[in-house]
Formats: sequence, C-alpha cells, structure tokens
Amino acid sequence: MSQPLNLRVIPMGGVGEIGKNMTLVEYDERILIIDAGLMFPENDMLGVDILIPDMSYVLEHREQVCGVIVTHGHEDHTGALPYLLPHLDQVPVYATRLTRGLVEVKLKEHKTAQPNFCTIAAGDKLDIGPFQVEFFHVSHSIPDGVGLAIRTPAGLIVHTGDFKLDHSPVDGQRTDFAKLADLGREGVLLLLSDSTNAETPGYTPSEQEIASTLEQAFMGAQGRVIVATFASNISRVQQVVDIAARHDRFVSVIGRSMVNNVRMAQELGYLHVPNGVMVGAEEINYLPSNKIALVCTGSQGEPTSALVRMASGDSRSITLKAGDTVIISATPIPGNEELVNRTVNNLFRRGATVYYDELFDVHVSGHASQEEQKMMLNLIRPQFFAPVHGEYRHLVLHARLAEQVGLPKERIFILDSGDILQLNCLSASLAGRVAQDRVFVDGLGVGDVDDAVLEERRLLSRNGFLVVAVAVDVYTGQVLAPPRIVSRGLAYNQEAEALLRGIEEQAGKLAAEGGNAAAISSRLKASLASYVYDQIGRRPVIQPLVIEI
Amino acid sequence: MSQPLNLRVIPMGGVGEIGKNMTLVEYDERILIIDAGLMFPENDMLGVDILIPDMSYVLEHREQVCGVIVTHGHEDHTGALPYLLPHLDQVPVYATRLTRGLVEVKLKEHKTAQPNFCTIAAGDKLDIGPFQVEFFHVSHSIPDGVGLAIRTPAGLIVHTGDFKLDHSPVDGQRTDFAKLADLGREGVLLLLSDSTNAETPGYTPSEQEIASTLEQAFMGAQGRVIVATFASNISRVQQVVDIAARHDRFVSVIGRSMVNNVRMAQELGYLHVPNGVMVGAEEINYLPSNKIALVCTGSQGEPTSALVRMASGDSRSITLKAGDTVIISATPIPGNEELVNRTVNNLFRRGATVYYDELFDVHVSGHASQEEQKMMLNLIRPQFFAPVHGEYRHLVLHARLAEQVGLPKERIFILDSGDILQLNCLSASLAGRVAQDRVFVDGLGVGDVDDAVLEERRLLSRNGFLVVAVAVDVYTGQVLAPPRIVSRGLAYNQEAEALLRGIEEQAGKLAAEGGNAAAISSRLKASLASYVYDQIGRRPVIQPLVIEI
Repeated sequence: MSQPLNLRVIPMGGVGEIGKNMTLVEYDERILIIDAGLMFPENDMLGVDILIPDMSYVLEHREQVCGVIVTHGHEDHTGALPYLLPHLDQVPVYATRLTRGLVEVKLKEHKTAQPNFCTIAAGDKLDIGPFQVEFFHVSHSIPDGVGLAIRTPAGLIVHTGDFKLDHSPVDGQRTDFAKLADLGREGVLLLLSDSTNAETPGYTPSEQEIASTLEQAFMGAQGRVIVATFASNISRVQQVVDIAARHDRFVSVIGRSMVNNVRMAQELGYLHVPNGVMVGAEEINYLPSNKIALVCTGSQGEPTSALVRMASGDSRSITLKAGDTVIISATPIPGNEELVNRTVNNLFRRGATVYYDELFDVHVSGHASQEEQKMMLNLIRPQFFAPVHGEYRHLVLHARLAEQVGLPKERIFILDSGDILQLNCLSASLAGRVAQDRVFVDGLGVGDVDDAVLEERRLLSRNGFLVVAVAVDVYTGQVLAPPRIVSRGLAYNQEAEALLRGIEEQAGKLAAEGGNAAAISSRLKASLASYVYDQIGRRPVIQPLVIEI
Repeated sequence: MSQPLNLRVIPMGGVGEIGKNMTLVEYDERILIIDAGLMFPENDMLGVDILIPDMSYVLEHREQVCGVIVTHGHEDHTGALPYLLPHLDQVPVYATRLTRGLVEVKLKEHKTAQPNFCTIAAGDKLDIGPFQVEFFHVSHSIPDGVGLAIRTPAGLIVHTGDFKLDHSPVDGQRTDFAKLADLGREGVLLLLSDSTNAETPGYTPSEQEIASTLEQAFMGAQGRVIVATFASNISRVQQVVDIAARHDRFVSVIGRSMVNNVRMAQELGYLHVPNGVMVGAEEINYLPSNKIALVCTGSQGEPTSALVRMASGDSRSITLKAGDTVIISATPIPGNEELVNRTVNNLFRRGATVYYDELFDVHVSGHASQEEQKMMLNLIRPQFFAPVHGEYRHLVLHARLAEQVGLPKERIFILDSGDILQLNCLSASLAGRVAQDRVFVDGLGVGDVDDAVLEERRLLSRNGFLVVAVAVDVYTGQVLAPPRIVSRGLAYNQEAEALLRGIEEQAGKLAAEGGNAAAISSRLKASLASYVYDQIGRRPVIQPLVIEI
C-alpha cells in the first residue's frame, strides 16, 4: 500500500474574519471548497459594495474542484457564490434544504444560473472526489446548519461551521453531541473550529432566552410592535410569529430580502405560521395598531432599510407614532454603531418605546463562547487544531483556550488568510501561502477597484476636486479662451464663489506664461494647489486639462 | 421691588450630545456662556475635521456676553474656544488652574491670542454680570473639574458639568456632596445634569479600579509596557507613573498633545512624578526593555497616532516585539470600533500581549451612572429638571430616572439643541428655538462646508468623477480637438483603460452632433452617465466642460 498523500487546508478571506468566507481542503490534487461568502466593507473602503475572497487560486485550479459545500445560509458563507459558481462548470453544490433555498433566492437576485445542487441532510455520508464527507447538525442563529467530518486516507478533518451549543434551540435541532463524541473516539487529525466569540467567557445563551424580552415588549405595547432583525434570522422571525399569535396580533413582513426569505422558509417548512396570522403589507392599514406586529430589516441602521426610513419619517407606508414599540433585535456589527445610535435617537424623538441592546436582552449570539469552544475541543480531542472564523485576535485567544484544555502549543496553528497548512497522519506544518488579497466588488466590477482607487476616493472624499481646462494654440502656446473650472466637494457659499473666481484668475495668469501643454499643466497643478491651500487650508485633487488646438 | 425677569437656558451643539459643547444662560439681556467644545465628525461626514456649535446666535448678541466659563479641560468643552474667543473682545474666561493650562496649550496650538483669563477655584463665588456664580468641585476623568451654582433674582440654576461620584479619585478631590446638599436646601429652580451614562445601571467604578488591571499588566510584563490613553487623561497618566515607579520602570511620553499636556500638568502640580522617573523619548533606546513604560496616544485607533504606527510597523522610533505589553486604556468611542479592532489585531500579529476593553477592565467612565444621577437629583431636589450632556435617547432615559425619584413629568424638559427654556420662580416653558445647525470645520473654513458639499463628497467617495473637456468653435459648433478626459476614483486596471478609451470615443461622437455649449454639455452628461453605468454599473460624478473658442 502506498503512503497516503498530504492533505492541505487553506483558509481564505483576506478581510476581517479568517477562513470565514471560504476554506479549501485539498487531497490528491482535488479541491473541496467549503462556503463562498462575502464581507461588508469597512467604513473607509469607500464606494465598495461587498468584499469577496480572492478566487484566483481556485480559478487557476478550477479543474481540480470536486465540490462546493455550503455549511449554512448566512451571507458571509453564501454571498460570494454568484461570483464563484459561474466559473465552475457542473461542479456539484452540497447544501441542506433551507440553505439551498436561501442560496437559490440569492442566485435569482443576482440573475445567476442555478448550479448542480445536491440536497443533503445531517447524517448523510457522501463521497466527493477523494473526500468522504459526513454532515452533522450544528445549532446556530439560522436553522439547518451543518458541520463537516471529512475523511481522507491521510486522516479525518472536522470543520465545525458556525456553531453554538444551544440546548433549547427554536427549531429543536441541537448540535449533534453524540456524533462529535464518536468522531473524537474515531480520532481526528485536524479540528477547524469557530472562533468568533473567543473573547466571551462562559456559554452563549440559548436563542430561546430572548423570548422573555419579546414577551415583555409585546405585553407592554399599546400600539404597533415593530421588530427589526437580520433578513436571514428565520429563528427570530419564528419567535416573533409565535409571540404575536399568542398576543392576538397579525404579522406582516417588510423589506424585499426579508419577504423572500420568509416566504421560502415557510414553503420549505422551516417557519411555522398559524393560519391567518401572516398578512400583506397593504392589509395592515385596515387593522388597529394593537393588532399589528411588523418584522423588518434595519437592525444595523442601514440607511435605505425599512426601520431607518420609519425612524427618519421617510417611510411612505409607515409613520411611527408615540405608543409604537420598536425592538431592534440585533447587536451592532462593529462599524455600524453610529448608524444604529442615530436610528435609536430618531426612534426616541418620534416617541416610540425602544428595546435595544444597551438596555435589553434583544439579541443572543449564534456563536459558541469560550466554554463551548472548550467543550468542542474536548469532545473532538484533535491531533492538530486550527482556530478559524474570527479576526486574528480571536484566533490567538481560541488557541490559548486549546492550550488550556491540554493541547500542546506546537500542535496549534494560527493561520492567516491564504496560509497553507499541510498535514499527514504524523505531522502538520505551514507550507507557504496562496495569493490572497481582498477583492472589492463595486457595481459590475469585481477586482477593478484596488487600494490605489480607494486612495483616490479617500482624497476626493476629504476635499473634493478641481479640474481646470485651458485651450491653447499648439503652435504659439497662446491661450485661446479663459480657463474653465469645475469643482465638486470643495466648498460652497459666497466665499467659495470668490475662491473659484480667484482660482480662475490665477489659472489665466499661469496659463498665459506659456510653454507646451506639459509645462502649463504642471505649473497649474503646483501653483493652484498652494493657492487653494493658502486660501482655505484644503488639498483637493487638482487636475489641469490643457487642450492643444 | 420689580418682578424678577425671566431666565433663559439654551443648550447648544447640534450634533450628538445635546448641550455638551455649549450652554447659554441668559438673564436681563446678559449672556453667560458655559463651555465651548468640539465634536469629532461621524464616519459619513467626509473630510470634516471637527464640528463646533453654531455660534451665529452668540455672535449676533456678542455685546451681551458677560463671561465664558470652562467647566473642565476636555476637548468637547474647550475645543471651540479658538473659534469663539477671537469674536468676544475682552470677555473674561473663567477656569480652574488645570483647565486654564489646558486651554492655554490649545490656544497656542491654534495660534489664537490668550483671552482675559480669570483663574477660579472650587469654592469661589463671583459676580459675572447679573449672575452670581459659585463653583463646586466635581470628580471626572480629568482633575480640577467644576460644577456651577448660578444665582439670579429669578432663581438658582445648578449645572453639574461632567461628573461622577468617585469616592476615591486619583487626585483625592471628591465631588462636593455637602455643597450639593446645601444647594438642595437653599432651593434650586433648575438642575442641568450630565446624562452621558443614563443607559448604565448602578454606579460608575472609581478611577482607582483600573489600578489592579495596570498592576497585573506590569507584574506579568517581560518587555516594554505601552499604555495608550487620551492625551487629556492626566489621572490615568498619574496611575501609570505611580505603578511604573513601583515596578522600577522609567516613563516616557510619546505624541505631541500628550507631551504638552503632561508637561503643563507637571508644572502646575497636577501630575506628580518622582525624580528621575520621566525620561525623554530618545533616552529609552539606552534602557533595557523591562525598564521601560511608555504612555502614548492612539487608544481610538487614530491612523496617525503613535500606537497605530507601532502596531502597523510604521513607527520610526519604536518597533514592537513579542514580549511587549500593550494596554489600550480606553473604550472605543462609537464610530471608532473598526479602527480599534484593526489596531488590536495588528498588535496580536506582532506578538504583543494586549490588554483591551473586551477582555480587561482597562478603562472606567468619567460619567455618573444611573444611581449617581438619581443621587444628584435627590441631593438637589430641583423645581425643574433638564437632562443635558447626552444623545437624545440618554436625555429621555435620564428624564425617566427623574420621574422614578419623584419629579413630576411636567417639570422635566427634554431639550434639543437650540431649544430655549424660559423660567421664573413659578414656571418653566419652552419659548422657541435659536438657529442651531451643526457647523463643520474643514481646514481654515468654518461653515463653508454644508450638507450639499458633503453630499458631493459622498458621491465622489462612492465612484469618483469623470470630467470631459471639449473645445468647440463658438460660431460653427465644430469640435476643434478630440475630447480630453480626466477621471479619479472610478476604476483602475486594463479594463478601466479600455473603458476610458470607450468614453473618449463616445464623447467624440456626442460632441460632433453639434449644437451650442449647453446642448453639447447636457448631451454628454446624460449619455456618458448611461454609457458608464452600462459598462461597469457605477455612477461617477460626470461633468462636461465645453470650451467655446
């Protein structure tokens, strides 16, 4: 019998959470892709719509890809599929029913062809190329999530997916402890485990725990009850539906992505709505306020979301009144705090009673806290461990937990995005990196916005621009018409007009000094920059255009 | 004896925290200004350096201003003085010694003339126009802060300033409970009280409480210890100096504002440094790592700060090594979370041991929590109450606390910025508003950036701009030279070049269709916008420049 080959594991991503958006497992020149998700840009990534993993390595080796597994239906695990699947002809995509439904909705929104889906369920064992993959259920803030046991001749890899150990999940589906124990007994070469909450001591509360806050809000509500949460948080919607029904209120869902997901989850049987409870957005106008519960997007203060429009009085359909109750059932994602604060202040200004995370238990995390992470380590007892799904500091902290439960430091690998971990049954080591830059998606462009473009946008965002166009005679260098100026984002009011007239005058003088186009251009650029800075202390982007006629 | 006149109280500000940056008290056509501070812009206020209160009302009535009181030395209470004082000829400025010192440093940095200072101390009673002002000590995260008892014929106003009830402050100066009780007995018409922490139950811990975290960090440190905090947090610096001295380490201060403040506080006797403990930045190169403690700025992840440069490896003087300990002794201000997270991740990547707010008690607030706010209300027992110094939701929550301690709802006024509260000994009511917009400072410009300019910057930040210049014959409309294009922040790579060539070609065709300058211009604008959108799905700012020759 020949020696088993090496396994290679590569967490991808490049921004923020490492390995969260995509992980590659390679054996015998075959690649298994786990998840293909997106990240939202940070505040200083101007004009960028989303970030996706750098797929150049995958696309260079596309003929080796034997399958794509989607562990659950959240955007940070599915959102890059529209950018990946069109390049992978006929490669099967493995997902549970709800996850598949959510991916189908997303692909439709992107007008991307549906792939070769293979619907799986927890408990299934499938051969995907050289990998035998067994799916086991994990609880998370969305139903139907799975973790993976990936068997290869070189050993067994366990990938937890996003998980928590919820003992009373809303959908009744617990993380499969027995399977984890079995895997531990079988002998696991490598554990890849969710590090998101490595900063949080203790246990993450059950999703059920927020029922009491919702109950309290519904009990005290005089007017409408409006619950804002993530569009994909089907378990949260289920809880709102249950409580609304108990309090004799009708439920309406607002916001396109929310409506699509809720409809699909209902059709697939993941969301159970008593007959007659769900009503359309138009019907709520005919119901008394105390019979209405609304579920909507906007929990992150997204400027165009339903909740934010209600808070600022811009919503055509819903005008908030004193007496209405708003529950923001989420915690702000880092970077969104200002937007959420602004929304909460506006809701208070409208006289609404607001349940939000500073004051109430309106949200529980979907991720394992430290004690659960230790439990996972102790159930699996892996030979090697690589914390994944977290920012760099979370991986370091998760690694420390592993040391605490007895794993020797040299068997723990803190990988950065693109790092290649090479393993066989005896040893593991870093074996280089694949190119792994962050890829920005802006409009239809994928990757045509880079750091240089962002830097230009940053300069423009600070002080705007100033373009000076001058037409000169190509032979004599004579200025043929007064310079024309266009400026945006620089300044605005009477003084600014005086400034612009001053600039025009300067430009006229500078151009009249003659020379060829290049000479005039560089003279204009330098002198106008210092003129503007002297006048108003700003440095707009200045670009002369010398037209030779 | 004639009837006393009405008192008027006007909280100013306009952004975020109401009344925090400036409050006006008016009686008998005289105006007392309390504080003149700045706010930092939110992430979507592009290119704005700082925000200051709209001073148009004050400047219209400048001859009525009889004094400016600065309650303490933090920037959100002092930072607008360079924009106010030059307009107020010879008006006295009242401040305690440390506050005065910090203001002097700030005015020097702004090259603003020093005003007519009047140094006061807690316990002083001064007549300022028709106001008899008594200063009482309050504890806060900076020494030498005061609250105000303002006596007028119409009644007594108590303004808490920023306060907490620290029973063991680092500087030994407690909030003057006895004075507060005396004032309560005397009878207070109106209480203006700090609402910042109205969301926080219980008591704010003493500043001393973080000593144990600092101690733990110093105990465990092998290499250098680096503490990042606010430049004005003299009490925190004092704690670091004390602990460093105990652990036989030399202290060096890094960062211009930090150095200036520390030097001044030492000179004035507010910072006590044992002989030989403080060393210059150049001397630390000659000391072993385990003898060094550094205090620096960067606790908010500010991109140009000392800590951030160390974390990203850009600092010329200090290269972080594994074994160094970094304490980020602050909580991220909302909006700064991403920058702080990035800094922490980079510190972990360099192998530093990092003490930060998610894991350790590295910071305590300088503001009263709910029980302290109630204590203030119960000591003062005012006839009327206006919560100030907080975002709108904080004021509402503070008002609820006042109701809980027995103040009737109709005696509580939730003021927004610019609201005029009119009072006499019998009644209080809202009496209109003064114009109170937010004023942006950008470079040398104060107020010449408005929402329209910000909207232009927002558009530019998203997709950049495209300017097309075409020279045409003024008589024939004939295009005299091929269109010239300049673009920034739109796209960058081979495809972008193809795009720009396509745009040039389009522009040439469109211009050749003739017409006058306005016709060509509007045709270019519309058609190029849809051309670009079709090509790359983006909407840059497009501006044609038609030069008629």
